[in-house]
Parts: sequence; structure tokens; C-alpha cells
Amino acid sequence: MTSFRVGLLGHGTVGAAFAGLVVERAGDVERVTGLRPEISGVLTRSRGDFREILEASDLIVELMGGRDPARQYVIEAMRAGRHVVTANKQLLAHHGEELWALAREREVQLRFEAAVAGVVPVIRVLQESLSAAHVERLHGIVNGTTNFILSEMARTGASYADALAEAQRLGYAEADPSEDVDGMDAAAKMAILARLAFNTPVSLGQVRYEGIERITADDVAYARELGLALKLIGTAERIDGGLSVRVHPAFLYPGHPLASVSGPFNAVTVESPAITEITMSGPGAGGPQTASAVLGDVISAMIPPASTPEVTEDLPIVADVESAFYLHLEVADRPGVLAAVATVLGDQGVSVKSVLQHGLGTSARLVMVLHPVLETRFFAALARIAELDFMRAAPRAIRVIEEEFT
Amino acid sequence: MTSFRVGLLGHGTVGAAFAGLVVERAGDVERVTGLRPEISGVLTRSRGDFREILEASDLIVELMGGRDPARQYVIEAMRAGRHVVTANKQLLAHHGEELWALAREREVQLRFEAAVAGVVPVIRVLQESLSAAHVERLHGIVNGTTNFILSEMARTGASYADALAEAQRLGYAEADPSEDVDGMDAAAKMAILARLAFNTPVSLGQVRYEGIERITADDVAYARELGLALKLIGTAERIDGGLSVRVHPAFLYPGHPLASVSGPFNAVTVESPAITEITMSGPGAGGPQTASAVLGDVISAMIPPASTPEVTEDLPIVADVESAFYLHLEVADRPGVLAAVATVLGDQGVSVKSVLQHGLGTSARLVMVLHPVLETRFFAALARIAELDFMRAAPRAIRVIEEEFT
Repeated sequence: MTSFRVGLLGHGTVGAAFAGLVVERAGDVERVTGLRPEISGVLTRSRGDFREILEASDLIVELMGGRDPARQYVIEAMRAGRHVVTANKQLLAHHGEELWALAREREVQLRFEAAVAGVVPVIRVLQESLSAAHVERLHGIVNGTTNFILSEMARTGASYADALAEAQRLGYAEADPSEDVDGMDAAAKMAILARLAFNTPVSLGQVRYEGIERITADDVAYARELGLALKLIGTAERIDGGLSVRVHPAFLYPGHPLASVSGPFNAVTVESPAITEITMSGPGAGGPQTASAVLGDVISAMIPPASTPEVTEDLPIVADVESAFYLHLEVADRPGVLAAVATVLGDQGVSVKSVLQHGLGTSARLVMVLHPVLETRFFAALARIAELDFMRAAPRAIRVIEEEFT
Repeated sequence: MTSFRVGLLGHGTVGAAFAGLVVERAGDVERVTGLRPEISGVLTRSRGDFREILEASDLIVELMGGRDPARQYVIEAMRAGRHVVTANKQLLAHHGEELWALAREREVQLRFEAAVAGVVPVIRVLQESLSAAHVERLHGIVNGTTNFILSEMARTGASYADALAEAQRLGYAEADPSEDVDGMDAAAKMAILARLAFNTPVSLGQVRYEGIERITADDVAYARELGLALKLIGTAERIDGGLSVRVHPAFLYPGHPLASVSGPFNAVTVESPAITEITMSGPGAGGPQTASAVLGDVISAMIPPASTPEVTEDLPIVADVESAFYLHLEVADRPGVLAAVATVLGDQGVSVKSVLQHGLGTSARLVMVLHPVLETRFFAALARIAELDFMRAAPRAIRVIEEEFT
């Protein structure tokens, strides 16, 4: 067993989640890369020595946040020939050009998927899938705190202050939420995304931004009346041979791919003539999610990604699964019909969630939504229902996917 | 200038679009890779010699479709040490294990992003970002034809036959649509996605599938009444230590990330404990879009993807942009107010799209949506409105993003 030594700078929420994930997924990483990852040292504010950790590491993961001393450590690590993975948006928004140039000079990798939009793989897709695409515009919901607050205001009619308090209670907003709610966090992320999408240096000072602090419950209510969704939207787009990068609260029409992104989620839409548009969405933050994005980067830095999948599991294929069903029956409109159908369903252990009945002269339509049950049992019941003498047409069944998200 | 020679097998819609894209983006590809791509030969049914093309190529792009002779050509190309990029889902669903094993043996790349979900980068994300993630479930809308038909039925109340005819008229369905509408196309794609997500061999025969041919306008109408969206959904999930892979029409609740995917789009949601879920969506087919995914693969095969972005453009940052606005005014409820506001807006060239007025005793709320205008002009008008004597509170303005999608 050959090990791959990861030096970890920072042991806050994300750092601790990452250290745990490395232990948990070590076997999977070894399967993919041939090397078993291990945390070779941890630097916190009170413990650890950076030089010792660097010496004992093949790669450095920087999860301290802030500009200094993170910048100095990342520079020293790359000068020592180590790959670096970071989740630090402030570091990249302020010092990206310096750090990327150094990475190229030292021929090491500097990966930063987790710095923007958490686990949503927008950095990789911009750098790889779209590396030679002509991007026209990029829209992003890149701050989960503000998206949660605006979603809550729309969902419950709450005031900004109450929705913020709820976000703090659930851990989606910090005790001091200013950088999230004033748009500065989103501005730093948009500077990084614009830099990648348009291959043009973008300094943080060039990103205009506005927050959500002055949004009222009224605005959100009028938005609903107008059929609009209110989001904090980052935009980077070509305009007349130039580039505009900005962050503002904005209303979206229902068909917009970002309009349905609710709760503490992030999402990015990239528009380019050749691809039309791609939208990616997922959790924008959270320790385990961010740690997962960091681990994806570590694996990519360990080995060139494989283009062919190896078989490493051999799961048996399952034939019978549980599904919920919608059931549509055309029946004679006479007493006892519903009872007969319900009895057949009950015999097979199928329970009914909701029923709609529509009269149609002498016949009726019975539409039911059923709770999940093994499909073999449902289809056994369906075969018996088809034979009941009051049926006027073949029964129709369509599966229902039950989970609700957000 | 060093060139990179791409041999192209197949010159149908996607093949022709790819050949055009290589010419159009040659400069961008050279910027990213240091090599200038050129099409070194094209094999069609009536023209070209495979061996000659292979001899003259650094990489083979297979866009013929079908199993033979595509399989034989891909095998010969890899045996000759060439990387291969293919968009051929049937080839991979039937012969994937054989071809992936050969690619590993010959140490060449076999890339296939365009084989599933067109330009949606689901293959790359599964193989790279999520290579060591424990995927629990994957849901996909992986056939654009059926998603267009079901969207049309929901939008217009059309019958299946009429919606299919409309899809054919718009080029979203083939003259013989059977493989799309019966679910077989989606089944082949789900076999590939399940293989990648679960690292387990999945043969096409193990994927249960059902099409949309028997869906009626009625079903779709009831679905709306129940607040549900009807989609053709592919599912691959772990169940009791095994794997189920299947394709069925299914109803989705409104919060589901796939519920809002309309028209000829594809989308995939990947669920895993560490990441919660990621959703990716985009156009599912179309010559230029598929060609764009093929080009992304060609670039990745040419060089290892860079982890650091180079500056290759220097776009000036644009300060003043056009935006549409929502404008919320609390005003005294007296005659002439709307006229005065409209005059100030008109003076700055701002035109009004819609107005809502709500009385509130002696004051009123005036909510307007304005057409796009340069922001400097809008804010000049806003400053003058704020000074009007009938204003009861500071005016509130929020941007509106105008585009409607689908």
C-alpha cells in the first residue's frame, strides 16, 4: 500500500469534515488512484508547524480562509513543488493571478472547485468541458445564505429580518452575516467565475455589487403577483467587446433556469452559442459538501483523470422495486366501485394516498395516487382491477416520484 | 504552428457540425492546448478510406452511430495507439466493457461525453468530480424528444400524436421516432450512466424501460390538477446491496430538481450522502451542441486539463449596462401622480412595460416593470422621482432579468 500524504491547513467546519471524509473514503480513493490518502499533519491557529507539515506532505489542502497567512503558505507550498487545493475565494479573488502564474511556473496544480458554489462542479466544467468555448454570459446564484433568505421570504411572507434570523437558527447564516447579505461574498465568487469564463483578469474592485438588506416582504409579494422569483444574481457578460461583472437582487421569469433554485442552493448557468446553455446546481456550502468538492480536487491532483471506468463493484441487478403510482380508471358510475377497487388494492398491501373522482354521465373517472409498494404487488392488483366488471377501459398506471426537494 | 490531426468518421448532422466547429474554434483550441486542430480526413458511407485516415490522424472522432462498423474502427484506432472520442451510445451500451478494457490496455483515452445528455457534462462530473463519491441514486431526463413531447402536452393540452407531430416538424423527433418514444434510447444512456456512477457492469438487457406512447392528454391534465409534472425519468439506485436501473414515465412533485426541466432539454440529478445532490441540465441533442461536447473531449484528450487559467483576453470592464427594472413607489393618492412619474421616466428614455396600482387610503402603491435601459439613465430618472413632492417613501428599484427560457 502506497500512501499519499495530505497536509491540511485549517481545521474549522470544512477542515474537520475533510479530515473525516479522507478516512471514510480512503478505500475508494485508493481504488481510483492506486494511492491511499492520509492526513499527514494539521495546522490550526494554536497547533502545528507549517514547515514540518509541508515537509511531510505530497499535497497541501488550504482551508484556513482569509488572505494572510493563507497566501504565504500556498506560495511556499507551490515553491516546494507541492500541488495545492484550496476553498478560499478571498485568496483567489485578490491574489489569483499571482498564484496561478506561480503554479504554472512551478508546474504544480492549484485547484479550487470548492471556492465557488461548493459542490457544484462549475470550475471544472469551465476549465475543462468549456475550455475553448466562446462564453457569452454567465448567471449565478453563488451565495446560499441570501438564496435561503429570499426563498423563505417568498415561501412564508416573512420580513427580511425574520428570514435572516431563521437562516441563522438553521446554520445557513453566520452570526455576522454582512459579507453574505451585502453581496460581497457573491462578488468575490463572480470575479473568479468571470476570470475563468472570459480569460480576462477581473479584480474584485471591478465587480459592482448590491445586497439584499433592503428587500422588503412587499417586494417579494409583488414579485409573486407578477409571477416573478427574486434572487441575488451574479452576472458576467460580454457587452460591446467589453465585460460586465455585477451582483444584484433581480427578478426572474418562471422559465429561467435559475428561477426554481430555492433554499441554500447555488446554481450557475453558462450561455454560449455552441452549447446554448448549461445549468448546474447543488448545495452551496456546508462542511461535508465543501469537503467533498475538496476531495474531488485532491483526487484530480493525485492522478490524471481516467477516461475509462474500471469495474470495481459487482452489484446484482434488482428486478422488483418499490414505486408510488398514479392510477387512472374509467368505471361505471354506480355504488360500490370505489370499495371494490380499494379492496383489491388492500389485498395486495397497496394503500391509497389521495383520490379524485369525476362524473361523466353514466361513467366516472377515478384517479388515485397510491403510496409506494413493491411493483410486483401493484401490478398483481392492477391485473385484478382490469378484470372487474365495471371497468369501461383498460386501467392506466404511471409512476410517481415521491421525494420533495429543497 | 504544430497541428493536431483529427480523423472524422461520419459526416451526418453532428459530424458536419463538428467539422465546422473545429475550423471556427481552431484558434481557441490552440490557445488552450498549444496545438492547432485540423480535420485530416473524413469517412462517409460513400467516401474515404479508414486505414488512410487512421494513418494521417492523431485522434479519431467516431460519429457514425450504430454498432458496426463503428466498433471495429474504434478497436483498430485504439490498437494503433490513437485516442478516440465518440458520441455513440449504442456502441458503449453494448460494447463498453470491451472498449474500455482495450483503452486501458493500450493506454489511450476513450472519451464519450456526447453519448449521454449532449452538452450536459455528466460523464466528466461522474468520472472526475465524483470519482470516489458513494452515489446512492441518479435520476435523469436523458431523452430530449420525449421531454419536448411531454412538455408540449402539458403546455398546450395537445394529444400525444399532435405533440409528436409538432416535435417532428421542429426537428426534435425523427421521422421514425420509435427508439426515442419507446424508452430504448433512454435505457441505453441509463445503462452507461449507471455503469459510471456505480462502477458495476450494466448490460442493456438489465435496464427495464417503458415509453410514453400510451400517455394521454388526460393523464397530463390530471397531473396538473395534482400539481405534478410528467417526465420520462431514468433511475439508477442502490437497493438492498443491489442496483436497479429503469426508465419510466413518472410524475414529479414541484420541488423536484427535474420537475422544471422543459422542452428538448436533458438533466441529471446525482444523489450522494456527502454532496446531497447535484443537478446538471442543458440541451440534450442538436448538431452544434453535440459537436461542442465532442470538441471538449478532443481538447481533454490532446492535453491534460490545466488547473490554472491563463489570461488570453483582456476585455475592458464595462460600467454602464442595460437593465430592466421593477420600480416600487409609495405616493399620495391624487390625480396626476402617474403622469408625473411617466414624464420623468420618458425624459430619460425609460419606457414602461406594466403597471400595478394599489390604493392604501390617502396613499397608493405604484409598482411598475420597465423595459431595459442604460442603468445611468434609469438612476437619473430615479433620483428625480425621489424628489417629487407626492412621494411618501424612498422609491425602491430592483432589476428584472428579462429572458424567458425553454
